[in-house]
Amino acid sequence: DKPFVLIAGPCQLESRAHALEMSHALVEITRKLGLGLIYKSSFDKANRTSVSTARGLGLEKSLPILAEVRETHGIPVLTDIHSPEQCAMVAEAVDILQIPAFLCRQTDLLLAAGATGRAINVKKGQFLAPWDMKNVAAKIASTGNENILLCERGASFGYNTLVSDMRSLPIMAETGYPVVFDATHSVQQPGGLGGSSGGQREFVPVLARAAVAIGVAAVFMETHQDPDKAPSDGPNMVPLSMMPEVLGDLVEFDRLAKGRPVGRTMAAR
Amino acid sequence: DKPFVLIAGPCQLESRAHALEMSHALVEITRKLGLGLIYKSSFDKANRTSVSTARGLGLEKSLPILAEVRETHGIPVLTDIHSPEQCAMVAEAVDILQIPAFLCRQTDLLLAAGATGRAINVKKGQFLAPWDMKNVAAKIASTGNENILLCERGASFGYNTLVSDMRSLPIMAETGYPVVFDATHSVQQPGGLGGSSGGQREFVPVLARAAVAIGVAAVFMETHQDPDKAPSDGPNMVPLSMMPEVLGDLVEFDRLAKGRPVGRTMAAR
Amino acid sequence: DKPFVLIAGPCQLESRAHALEMSHALVEITRKLGLGLIYKSSFDKANRTSVSTARGLGLEKSLPILAEVRETHGIPVLTDIHSPEQCAMVAEAVDILQIPAFLCRQTDLLLAAGATGRAINVKKGQFLAPWDMKNVAAKIASTGNENILLCERGASFGYNTLVSDMRSLPIMAETGYPVVFDATHSVQQPGGLGGSSGGQREFVPVLARAAVAIGVAAVFMETHQDPDKAPSDGPNMVPLSMMPEVLGDLVEFDRLAKGRPVGRTMAAR
Amino acid sequence: DKPFVLIAGPCQLESRAHALEMSHALVEITRKLGLGLIYKSSFDKANRTSVSTARGLGLEKSLPILAEVRETHGIPVLTDIHSPEQCAMVAEAVDILQIPAFLCRQTDLLLAAGATGRAINVKKGQFLAPWDMKNVAAKIASTGNENILLCERGASFGYNTLVSDMRSLPIMAETGYPVVFDATHSVQQPGGLGGSSGGQREFVPVLARAAVAIGVAAVFMETHQDPDKAPSDGPNMVPLSMMPEVLGDLVEFDRLAKGRPVGRTMAAR
Repeated sequence: DKPFVLIAGPCQLESRAHALEMSHALVEITRKLGLGLIYKSSFDKANRTSVSTARGLGLEKSLPILAEVRETHGIPVLTDIHSPEQCAMVAEAVDILQIPAFLCRQTDLLLAAGATGRAINVKKGQFLAPWDMKNVAAKIASTGNENILLCERGASFGYNTLVSDMRSLPIMAETGYPVVFDATHSVQQPGGLGGSSGGQREFVPVLARAAVAIGVAAVFMETHQDPDKAPSDGPNMVPLSMMPEVLGDLVEFDRLAKGRPVGRTMAAR
Repeated sequence: DKPFVLIAGPCQLESRAHALEMSHALVEITRKLGLGLIYKSSFDKANRTSVSTARGLGLEKSLPILAEVRETHGIPVLTDIHSPEQCAMVAEAVDILQIPAFLCRQTDLLLAAGATGRAINVKKGQFLAPWDMKNVAAKIASTGNENILLCERGASFGYNTLVSDMRSLPIMAETGYPVVFDATHSVQQPGGLGGSSGGQREFVPVLARAAVAIGVAAVFMETHQDPDKAPSDGPNMVPLSMMPEVLGDLVEFDRLAKGRPVGRTMAAR
Repeated sequence: DKPFVLIAGPCQLESRAHALEMSHALVEITRKLGLGLIYKSSFDKANRTSVSTARGLGLEKSLPILAEVRETHGIPVLTDIHSPEQCAMVAEAVDILQIPAFLCRQTDLLLAAGATGRAINVKKGQFLAPWDMKNVAAKIASTGNENILLCERGASFGYNTLVSDMRSLPIMAETGYPVVFDATHSVQQPGGLGGSSGGQREFVPVLARAAVAIGVAAVFMETHQDPDKAPSDGPNMVPLSMMPEVLGDLVEFDRLAKGRPVGRTMAAR
Repeated sequence: DKPFVLIAGPCQLESRAHALEMSHALVEITRKLGLGLIYKSSFDKANRTSVSTARGLGLEKSLPILAEVRETHGIPVLTDIHSPEQCAMVAEAVDILQIPAFLCRQTDLLLAAGATGRAINVKKGQFLAPWDMKNVAAKIASTGNENILLCERGASFGYNTLVSDMRSLPIMAETGYPVVFDATHSVQQPGGLGGSSGGQREFVPVLARAAVAIGVAAVFMETHQDPDKAPSDGPNMVPLSMMPEVLGDLVEFDRLAKGRPVGRTMAAR
């Protein structure tokens, strides 16, 4: 019913200046389009393919920057957490804690995140069926926190490839929690470049459009002013300069979809 | 650029009366929506799960009925063929020959179909990558017939399940041939009921909407006035009574998509 | 309980001289190892990736050669068929008709093959669950012919890749029909080379050994004196010179497996 | 070259009495078979399907019991760890730290585990290609600890199902690290029972035999005197009473395989 919210930012928090610059640009873009914005960046890439690649600024340096982004623009901020211990501290600086896909079954992490009372965006594991996300959500909800988002980001499909099963969007929506489509990681080719993951940037607008047409509460889309020089996920980030056009399309499809919920035309499952 | 064409009809040709009734209803529905219609029915279900299930009326009885549907309504008619010998005879009665997914690599069938000069709709095998369909098309094109449609209908995903990889639509479109999305068989659960295939009818509008938003030349959607009593594919056919609403939605998404081709917003692959 | 039978030969029947030479070599190799031999060659590669690759000698030229191989060595001969019309004629020249994997659900082909009374080796489709092969076998058995072999040759696993699910061997064995493991096509990478299929020859002995240890009635293994020059399936054929050693290993594992049936140690499914 | 080592025990550490009883039984069984034994039990099931299922005794109560098992029988003990903080403490009580499959890309966990100097058994993620495990091993090896085992436990294959790709054993062996086959979790059906995971116990000896025939350094096999009453992984644990026969078979296949390394018969990759 309401327009989708954009969860966007560069994959990795690179510096204070970069974060302020990127968030400023995204605020401008989404304001013109009438979209809500949640700024996303990671302080630590905790599960990279290779041990020798950059992991990011780290928790201590990053939280004040995320807090500054939040305060400067008056927008909610999201970051991913990797251990139960991080949850409380991160929850002070950001509005939404994100559970990485590989960690979506780690009970302690889900409970610690839930206990902060912050909104929790859980990525569906590449190894998980969409109907099994209700068990994941129930772990968080057991803390009394029902502020949960469920995020599709691709399922394992042979080796080094993911496939986006669009059925997962209505299946996860049956839980009653808002559903997010991560258009960036759905086109990742995990480990596909040997020492790092490949990606298929050109399919981001394709899959995002499909998801928005079906109907989602939010679209997750990483972006960078120069993706090919980004320290991580470059192959699947959308260049910042293309965001207005990519998002402009999605806004139109979203408006249409919100007026015509897909479940309306057929008997429920 | 042009609105999608609807390829529709009951999976199996049941009787002359049924064909005339169904085609009449579909002509009415698509006329109101301003959609082109290609009437589809099979004269023979040649690869059913079990030997003891109904296969259909057969070639001799069916071709005159399909020809009558064509003449009565002035609409093109499509049916699937299973051997090179059938091609010439079927080509006299119908406008589009369809190659079943399991048979999409059978060279003799592709060549015989191509040689008829009729349009050929090739279903992508459940076992085939979308980029490999260019080799399939090249077999047909080697006959001098470039009137080819490439049809996505799901890829094998574990056992008894298919997944619709929406990336296949733009990938197949790179061949320059029109791309069809088969929303009926993409939700099939092959062999999923033991002696027959199951299906998930409720996902037909979901996947069709995603495909139309990305942009397709045609949507393939089987329908029946009483799917649960249909002799085949009942679990994944859309009830005729719901077609106006399901299609009405798709028309809106198609109009939007045709004005905003998805490739426009990002660098080509 | 009895030693496995070897189904072997070059993928494609190349010439009379080549067939006699290859069959002679295989007779020698298997005689020394005490293995039964079924000579396999195709007269037509009816479903190649590209239309411009060699298809083989054809039916008329090939059948007399296969018959001569049979007569010369007193060994059974196997070839694959692609249409119902071929069955009767081919059945006069060979002992075992083989149903290609893509065609394993084509009812008419299964019935025509069954009606010849010859043994039928059905390859399990890359898109089929092992428990669904009972329906395939039932189609053949409906002709009164129970002389059926069920053959595992890999399941679709993402794009351009197959995976061998070893559980399929005991699952298919539950039908009571002998189970064959095709070690050649299980390591195929369908369409993996763009215009032709790739393969991983080095895994043939790996997968064959696993299958034999579990227990199979026959091993299917294509071979060639110079695979890299073979007109088809070169990347996954075992060089003839390596067959004695590869088979010598399998004989040992087979002897052990036949004395210790795997089902013996655990409750039946 | 050397006989495989058995990594076995009940999935979950249930009580001191149970651990001593089970380890005693396994010591007896493996002694008779001439097999090395590593006793395995988990102190915490940290990623169960549902939040309401039993997680285990916990770290504090479990470590003394594992230490007592080690001391009583003079055998190495293995348990899995879930956070970097646990590594040092657990390393004092056990000989081998195990990295769970979902966590196999968590850099901090791999580094903390490696830094203990203990042997590390890393389960290959269900979402990971076997050739990508070299990057996982390199993370551990970057700590100076080369005492690494790589463990196959199944790859995602559609939803709620895993498949064991036996090619992964030689592929992972190319790293030079010993390869373990986990026959228990390879037959798991993740989330397959709705609120818990299903399993196919009857395939444990099937897949274990295939792996041993190919050649592995160790077999991982959970067992319980009454699996159907076990608090976790019951559907895929082998009853203790069947272990002698199951293992007796594997010993024979292992002896044969160690005398005939599979790589010997074909050119290296």
